[in-house]
Amino acid sequence: MCELLGMECNVLTDIVFSFAGLAGRGGKHGPHSDGWGLALYEGRVARVFLDPQPAADSPLAKFVREHPIKTLLAIAHVRRKTRGQVSLANTHPFVRELWGRHFVYAHNGTVKGVRKLKLGRFNPIGDTDSEHAFCYLLAALHHDFPQGPRSQVDYSNAVAKYAGRIGKLGSFNMLLGDGTQLFARCATKLHYIIRKAPFAKATLADEDVSVDFAAVTTPHDRVAVIATTPLTRDEVWTTGIPDTLWVFRKGKLVRTLAC
Amino acid sequence: MCELLGMECNVLTDIVFSFAGLAGRGGKHGPHSDGWGLALYEGRVARVFLDPQPAADSPLAKFVREHPIKTLLAIAHVRRKTRGQVSLANTHPFVRELWGRHFVYAHNGTVKGVRKLKLGRFNPIGDTDSEHAFCYLLAALHHDFPQGPRSQVDYSNAVAKYAGRIGKLGSFNMLLGDGTQLFARCATKLHYIIRKAPFAKATLADEDVSVDFAAVTTPHDRVAVIATTPLTRDEVWTTGIPDTLWVFRKGKLVRTLAC
Repeated sequence: MCELLGMECNVLTDIVFSFAGLAGRGGKHGPHSDGWGLALYEGRVARVFLDPQPAADSPLAKFVREHPIKTLLAIAHVRRKTRGQVSLANTHPFVRELWGRHFVYAHNGTVKGVRKLKLGRFNPIGDTDSEHAFCYLLAALHHDFPQGPRSQVDYSNAVAKYAGRIGKLGSFNMLLGDGTQLFARCATKLHYIIRKAPFAKATLADEDVSVDFAAVTTPHDRVAVIATTPLTRDEVWTTGIPDTLWVFRKGKLVRTLAC
Repeated sequence: MCELLGMECNVLTDIVFSFAGLAGRGGKHGPHSDGWGLALYEGRVARVFLDPQPAADSPLAKFVREHPIKTLLAIAHVRRKTRGQVSLANTHPFVRELWGRHFVYAHNGTVKGVRKLKLGRFNPIGDTDSEHAFCYLLAALHHDFPQGPRSQVDYSNAVAKYAGRIGKLGSFNMLLGDGTQLFARCATKLHYIIRKAPFAKATLADEDVSVDFAAVTTPHDRVAVIATTPLTRDEVWTTGIPDTLWVFRKGKLVRTLAC
């Protein structure tokens, strides 16, 4: 099992506070010490930091925390391996280009039967069930929308359909970003919060680190944060219902689909 | 115009010495201050550091120099933009997955007519001629070898054929890695050196920084370094002949093809 973190906003935001909470679970407050990764979008392209070392004592994770990069959409992951060895090739998030944009994906859970799902134009590089599921999902989307989707509704329905198909083969909590929106599927455990005005103070669940969001935001800012378990102790997080897909756009939850 | 750097070895090697020489040309000793990138393979997967900031004063470039990662194959690039704005999406090297491995590519020159070349399954994310050429090249290789090449000779002949086709449309100095070998095409300017026993001291061309390779190598080590202009002042580099493709494998120049 692993821990997921996503952030989707209507204003450029740095993910350092939430990432610090997640990174602490990568070998310090949690057992997820088999690597970590962070993808930060800039338009259609994602900048990706990957490290098969524990996040809690990774020099690269320290660098990322000390040099915040603002973004509208980010996906992070700390890994506790269940299938596939500890290696760079097996480190989430995974990235592929489709429709001239990067797709970024991270998975929490195990999908034992995933190799029943036939692959198309995307091939796994590592040997995890997670990456196989990602390659299947992207090929299915490409099959349905060879030139890219024209309708947001059809597009999110398709993500729900194929994510649900994968979910039938195991436990499939996952985050998928395309640069403009974030899809988040809950199988067993996923939470979200939307920070908006009036902003308040928040304190990490595992460490005595606080941020007063009122001091660093404007009244129109909206920041959705999605995490396996709530990252803060003094905010109200919404718990996901199993087999549900959330779609976040511009810091809003725009759709909730059964899948 | 830009500067290219490639390294291909038979033993895990860090690229810090050569990268320091290249990074100095990114805004300090040279005008290539529109971003830089470095890809380091681990097996079939590449770890990629990209920064649209000048390499000479980039905190990420400093981090990379201070935390050497050993690799058998690396590709780096400092950019001086000719086409396409300064942005993450336009920063080399570019990466795509084909045949279950990462392909990494960087280009020096301008290929004005490149959009005449039809694209296949790979789409550019940014707006450079360079990325368009890369997408064309990979789609052509995929077309010729849908399941991957069985023959190294056919494979390098195909790279030469399609690189030559791109080269007819402009200036196409480029590096292409697949995790096990490095293809290097010279259009106007490219040099290489193979460091092997007996190893000697080398001093950067632009700075008073030296390494005594005899102290950090074994007699069987072979390290090929490919660069736009020689990075050291006290070694003999081989100058590329225009319209030639070099193929490096395990630190050896295994083929030279006209293209």
